[in-house]
Amino acid sequence: MREICLIGIGTGNPEHITLEAERAIRQADLVLLPHKEDGKAELAHVRITLLQRLGVGPERIAHFDMPVRRQHGDDYGQQVDEWHDAIAQRWRASLVAHSMAQSCRVALLVWGDPVLYDSSLRIAARLGLSPQQVRVVPGITSMQLLCGAHGIALNDIGAPFLVTTGRQLQKSGWPKGIDTLVVMLDGQCTYEQVCEPDADIYWGAYLGMPQQMLIRGKLADVKARITDQRRQARARHGWIMDIYLLRRRPA
Amino acid sequence: MREICLIGIGTGNPEHITLEAERAIRQADLVLLPHKEDGKAELAHVRITLLQRLGVGPERIAHFDMPVRRQHGDDYGQQVDEWHDAIAQRWRASLVAHSMAQSCRVALLVWGDPVLYDSSLRIAARLGLSPQQVRVVPGITSMQLLCGAHGIALNDIGAPFLVTTGRQLQKSGWPKGIDTLVVMLDGQCTYEQVCEPDADIYWGAYLGMPQQMLIRGKLADVKARITDQRRQARARHGWIMDIYLLRRRPA
Repeated sequence: MREICLIGIGTGNPEHITLEAERAIRQADLVLLPHKEDGKAELAHVRITLLQRLGVGPERIAHFDMPVRRQHGDDYGQQVDEWHDAIAQRWRASLVAHSMAQSCRVALLVWGDPVLYDSSLRIAARLGLSPQQVRVVPGITSMQLLCGAHGIALNDIGAPFLVTTGRQLQKSGWPKGIDTLVVMLDGQCTYEQVCEPDADIYWGAYLGMPQQMLIRGKLADVKARITDQRRQARARHGWIMDIYLLRRRPA
Repeated sequence: MREICLIGIGTGNPEHITLEAERAIRQADLVLLPHKEDGKAELAHVRITLLQRLGVGPERIAHFDMPVRRQHGDDYGQQVDEWHDAIAQRWRASLVAHSMAQSCRVALLVWGDPVLYDSSLRIAARLGLSPQQVRVVPGITSMQLLCGAHGIALNDIGAPFLVTTGRQLQKSGWPKGIDTLVVMLDGQCTYEQVCEPDADIYWGAYLGMPQQMLIRGKLADVKARITDQRRQARARHGWIMDIYLLRRRPA
């Protein structure tokens, strides 16, 4: 393989793709595509529609089964490592099955951006390529969409913000001196346990898609409603992807 | 005015624009464009080329002079407030001069993304529009490009990262428990004063442009080289925009 290209395709809005991403997809000899995730038919549809629009037919698509990450045990780092090894194995097997020549360009479509809470750079690093052979094409991230949709900036003027996960927020709490948190990957509704009732929350789900949902307000006032609507939406669609921003009010 | 649309156009790479941004520019009745910033001819060129490619002629462009922010005094917040007021005045004057009707769509081209260390949302808020009349179109940010170009993720696996400014880093130092910092708006080379000689730095300037520069390595080993190359590049081009990521090595 000549190059593996990790292409950020933004979230569910097909118009969030960049010209560079379009070109990279068109130029790929093979697109590695995971089999449809359970229940996420809408997301699979976005990807397939994109490939069709750019003229990538089935002969240039290699499907692979995503392995399941071991969830038991508290060795989270080790679980993730094993999982990345297993995915790299699947990628290799797909390439072998498609007899990819040395000169081929292989592409992967990544939700959001490959540099933000995504595994594909770490998986690609397992393929024994040189750094020059791994190319990243940036894409619009959910944290940009969240703020854009709410019409707010990520940062207060000149102030920092922390990007973190639900797991980290649960473990470490809200750090002092940082008034804005962006929380990703939180299936556990950790905002419910945040003891800053005066903080504001800006929540969004299915960002960029027709079913986009937005709720904002004082955390204490809206957290129950977010959890309720989140549960209902998840039941209705069979899946949910959401993100939120927490901001302390100025004292 | 019917709508003001703040359009993220990414950095200097014209291919980093999204389809949504292209459409929003094409549909604008008037594009508000600051007069060429001193010495930043390359950036002005990127914008004008983009507008030409999308068929926006001079009759749909309103130039305005950027006021200068008061720099004396230590009331930074107040300086920024006054500056935003002054810019909003210029926007208003431009719209009046162009006899913009109630039904018009006005667009602004924003480097990077309007939600990240950018003033246009706060300036637009001074125009007395309803939230529905202010629309944000996300764009690729320099922090995504920095990491993509270096082939690294913003975050360690499941770990948080802090996005901050040179001024904040100088004031507050590197917070405990957060191993990754992304530092923007640092004209003072604050990384030189960071007392974590084992940390790694990933630095980039003119990201996405032909003159892109990248340096990476152990902070203690490369910081002098970064400062040196930064100074030379700034002298050569007449301007510089740069960003860096600092990461503590695992203990």
